[in-house]
Amino acid sequence: MTSQKKLQGLVAATVTPMTQDGEINLAVIGQYVDYLINEQGVRSVFVNGTTGEGLSLSTQERKQLAEEWVAKGKDKLDHVIVHVGALSLPESKGLAKHAAEIGVDGIAVIAPSFFKQVNKDALVAFLRDVALEAPGIPFYYYHIPPLTGIQIKVEELLDEMVEQIPSFHGVKFSDRDLLDFGRCIAKNSSGRFALLYGVDEQLLSALTMGATGAVGSTYNYFGKANNLMLEAFAKGDLSTAQKYQFCIQEFLSFAIAEGFGVPQIKAMMSLVSGIPMGPPRLPLASASEEFVANVKVKLEDLKSSLYHLF
Amino acid sequence: MTSQKKLQGLVAATVTPMTQDGEINLAVIGQYVDYLINEQGVRSVFVNGTTGEGLSLSTQERKQLAEEWVAKGKDKLDHVIVHVGALSLPESKGLAKHAAEIGVDGIAVIAPSFFKQVNKDALVAFLRDVALEAPGIPFYYYHIPPLTGIQIKVEELLDEMVEQIPSFHGVKFSDRDLLDFGRCIAKNSSGRFALLYGVDEQLLSALTMGATGAVGSTYNYFGKANNLMLEAFAKGDLSTAQKYQFCIQEFLSFAIAEGFGVPQIKAMMSLVSGIPMGPPRLPLASASEEFVANVKVKLEDLKSSLYHLF
Amino acid sequence: MTSQKKLQGLVAATVTPMTQDGEINLAVIGQYVDYLINEQGVRSVFVNGTTGEGLSLSTQERKQLAEEWVAKGKDKLDHVIVHVGALSLPESKGLAKHAAEIGVDGIAVIAPSFFKQVNKDALVAFLRDVALEAPGIPFYYYHIPPLTGIQIKVEELLDEMVEQIPSFHGVKFSDRDLLDFGRCIAKNSSGRFALLYGVDEQLLSALTMGATGAVGSTYNYFGKANNLMLEAFAKGDLSTAQKYQFCIQEFLSFAIAEGFGVPQIKAMMSLVSGIPMGPPRLPLASASEEFVANVKVKLEDLKSSLYHLF
Amino acid sequence: MTSQKKLQGLVAATVTPMTQDGEINLAVIGQYVDYLINEQGVRSVFVNGTTGEGLSLSTQERKQLAEEWVAKGKDKLDHVIVHVGALSLPESKGLAKHAAEIGVDGIAVIAPSFFKQVNKDALVAFLRDVALEAPGIPFYYYHIPPLTGIQIKVEELLDEMVEQIPSFHGVKFSDRDLLDFGRCIAKNSSGRFALLYGVDEQLLSALTMGATGAVGSTYNYFGKANNLMLEAFAKGDLSTAQKYQFCIQEFLSFAIAEGFGVPQIKAMMSLVSGIPMGPPRLPLASASEEFVANVKVKLEDLKSSLYHLF
Repeated sequence: MTSQKKLQGLVAATVTPMTQDGEINLAVIGQYVDYLINEQGVRSVFVNGTTGEGLSLSTQERKQLAEEWVAKGKDKLDHVIVHVGALSLPESKGLAKHAAEIGVDGIAVIAPSFFKQVNKDALVAFLRDVALEAPGIPFYYYHIPPLTGIQIKVEELLDEMVEQIPSFHGVKFSDRDLLDFGRCIAKNSSGRFALLYGVDEQLLSALTMGATGAVGSTYNYFGKANNLMLEAFAKGDLSTAQKYQFCIQEFLSFAIAEGFGVPQIKAMMSLVSGIPMGPPRLPLASASEEFVANVKVKLEDLKSSLYHLF
Repeated sequence: MTSQKKLQGLVAATVTPMTQDGEINLAVIGQYVDYLINEQGVRSVFVNGTTGEGLSLSTQERKQLAEEWVAKGKDKLDHVIVHVGALSLPESKGLAKHAAEIGVDGIAVIAPSFFKQVNKDALVAFLRDVALEAPGIPFYYYHIPPLTGIQIKVEELLDEMVEQIPSFHGVKFSDRDLLDFGRCIAKNSSGRFALLYGVDEQLLSALTMGATGAVGSTYNYFGKANNLMLEAFAKGDLSTAQKYQFCIQEFLSFAIAEGFGVPQIKAMMSLVSGIPMGPPRLPLASASEEFVANVKVKLEDLKSSLYHLF
Repeated sequence: MTSQKKLQGLVAATVTPMTQDGEINLAVIGQYVDYLINEQGVRSVFVNGTTGEGLSLSTQERKQLAEEWVAKGKDKLDHVIVHVGALSLPESKGLAKHAAEIGVDGIAVIAPSFFKQVNKDALVAFLRDVALEAPGIPFYYYHIPPLTGIQIKVEELLDEMVEQIPSFHGVKFSDRDLLDFGRCIAKNSSGRFALLYGVDEQLLSALTMGATGAVGSTYNYFGKANNLMLEAFAKGDLSTAQKYQFCIQEFLSFAIAEGFGVPQIKAMMSLVSGIPMGPPRLPLASASEEFVANVKVKLEDLKSSLYHLF
Repeated sequence: MTSQKKLQGLVAATVTPMTQDGEINLAVIGQYVDYLINEQGVRSVFVNGTTGEGLSLSTQERKQLAEEWVAKGKDKLDHVIVHVGALSLPESKGLAKHAAEIGVDGIAVIAPSFFKQVNKDALVAFLRDVALEAPGIPFYYYHIPPLTGIQIKVEELLDEMVEQIPSFHGVKFSDRDLLDFGRCIAKNSSGRFALLYGVDEQLLSALTMGATGAVGSTYNYFGKANNLMLEAFAKGDLSTAQKYQFCIQEFLSFAIAEGFGVPQIKAMMSLVSGIPMGPPRLPLASASEEFVANVKVKLEDLKSSLYHLF
């Protein structure tokens, strides 16, 4: 791992493998690492995030999982980013400290979202207090208003984060507001920070606005197609890039209409990767068998017409 | 404490006293208990809830606070209800187990709210798994959709909770939907369950619908006035009950216009009780001095016209 | 009609009868008047409101309908209130002028809701400009934030409306916020204004807060049961009032779960009254036959247990 | 005018000039046409839309305004598109018929938004009924869920609109959901339809997804800068395109923070064009003088650094 190497390209927001009993299943992480690299061409991971049900795990489990990803990924992955956000500041600080001790390549923190009237200064103070527990470890703010309900624009936070958080390295930006995203890009003209987009279904639009990477769950199973899109875009071949984007959109639009959340992503990953990811943990319920069956047919359809994408 | 005694009347949703450094301040809990009983006529408490910043505390802190309330309240309070909800099922289970061990009079669990697509069956399964860690301890479901964003009606959960949770004793119902509340009352014709209302500013309306008690933050400082309202209502003296309700509403309407959240409730409590409750913890920021000054004037105004209420 | 008589008790928010071709069907209004009086004990109507698809009609149709209700109701009904709100101020003014000319007992205006950033002063100015076209005709503000998305509290508007609108007579308050409603009641200690509640399923709660009347669609078909509830409440017999409220809630909860909107209310009215109300107009689609069948069974069930209510 | 010529490039969503008395001011439309062409390089207009306060005007005013734009634009503009949507189907049909009679180049219809439970089939039926009153006139669906609250995706409507509306020519797509937008582009591989983007602040992102044009209010005053962006994008010069987009974003981000709605757009247009656009009509209130002063300074700042853009 090369912590200070710039985080760019695709970062898989990993699911957390579980046994049928609902315990975390560390045994398959090694296999998961190899799968991402070999089958999807994805060399960076985001652990214990939304897709990873991080906030549904105990502090102890989050630490174990982070350790296992670092252990298995050390010599193979480019970046292991661990999400250490929590509703409770002391718990988040503890997770950040642990992450630094085990040598992660970066930590990320979501806005604590139980109270909706959080203000800008208090939010930055919260993030700073966590970041300071892991000095020297690249810090990323995880912005996802559709889930947190915290509507403060990143543009409004950026200067203050830069000023108060010495380890600030960037943002996982999971929102459709490309005005806000564009403002961040414009403010990052030096390119010091990684502005990673997190709404997978419209990544191409964010690339145009200046995104240099992306963090999302679809890179677990559509990594290859997205890498091809990134390549085409980099070469200025917009028409090919669109072809990939539209193909990915066709699938995601289908899946969303079927009901697409973390349980479905998990089922999808078991299906595509062959690695048993198990059920989600309560309060989430398993994807239905019908969902899995329908998705299987849809994937076959797409493969037959666009076999090179998947 | 008399665990199996029916929970009714006013229950104060307690704030969590903190030092200026942001650590929990256990030293004033004893004083807090006496204040509630002597000054407000309130003999039941709800600990580690929304007002208590329960989800902002570490697991360890939540346990310490619960222990202190039980220790100090044992021979004085009627009910010490401890909120043990958490985003993480194993952490919530651990808190429930601990609460049972220290002899609380009841536990309450909020819907885990990070994922919004939680379904009915999974929610009840989550609640059941927590409740089963504290067998024999009265279990209350804490319903507060404006904060959780989980919109499942209690009416839809009630039968399943009764069936699957042997210790189910009731609901803290913090929502304006009095159709849903009325449906619960109608389904509770035997009066087995405590249906406690949690939108303090319109308690009178819920009493008419059949509420037998209330849990809320305003009972920390307007306990006396609310008790007088309950008495008037019980005697069928609606006109007097309205007088109290309108007076409370006048204050709350004023406070809400000034910006009223947990930090302001905390400042208010320090002001009214004289017990130093300290600042809130991040991500919340302290109430402004202006807020405190304005509220002080408003309280004086109300007192001079309605001196017997406060 | 006795315009200056206080508007109180139940006011039916009428549906607009239509032919199968989607034209307004004036021919059945006379029958509708008799049905409300004789079968439901309801003697006041609210015409061209939400339930009446007022905003889906042309200006010409709204005028014709208002004329017909006035003509048929003149010697029979206590109050014919006509909703004259529109997105366009000149159209709303024209409707108000017409209403005054034909001798309605009151006009009502909803907040124009296309633009969401409407401010308090501009809203009152809009209402005033409409009201001034019908001087001497009692004016009611129609507050229904769940539909308009305009979140300004009535408490914030009340003083200004009183000051600027000489014909101001009250509010149709269709929201669950009983703090706001209570504040209006408290400000109306003289009882000059009619504060009519509009969330039918929780009317009992609003009565306790001081409502002296109600406007809603359910009074078209549950007028009798609601009148019995009002009577019981007036006598201080809360237990009987609750019985009626819970019975009404049982039906409405059932209907809402089946999907309950204007098309369903219309189908319901055809079913209960025997008067053919026809389909709704686009953009609304007719209630399904399945809905009608299910509702029929539910009504029979309720009748057999509580035959005196309907 | 060349009706059947493909609608592409920038379309200005025009404001409606008003006198100080709040009457529509037809006298300046000619000047407005010349300004758009000469100063902004914009040759197509969208009349009576959101920016034009179309729904705040009377039917008569909408017709007069449409007539004036057609009269003055006939030999100068490429396209005069008239918005004929209304809450009332008969009024919308009347407007469509009139638009056809006066020879507009296209009509557009917004989803009627008073009732939120509108379903897909009923919405298409509504649109079709309006379109059929103007046979042969290109029909555009105006999709703007942030204002209408109607959340049906265009993807779900597209096939049905194509099938049922012979004159269907495209969509004004005013939403950030670029998955939905991308799906429409993918379904329009033949390029038969105009898919015009309507969230001005992130137009560049929509171009990448395949937008061939844009309709928005900012093209009234930033037409030139946006045309330069379109040119740069067409040449594959993404870096220059971004420079323009970021400059526009800087201004819009500033204006939004100051409070940016139709009144502000109107004030802005008076300022930039020198044509007196007058105040907005109630329920909108005029922009504050402070807003105008602040915007003036900001525009000067931007001009001095990027003088060629404005």
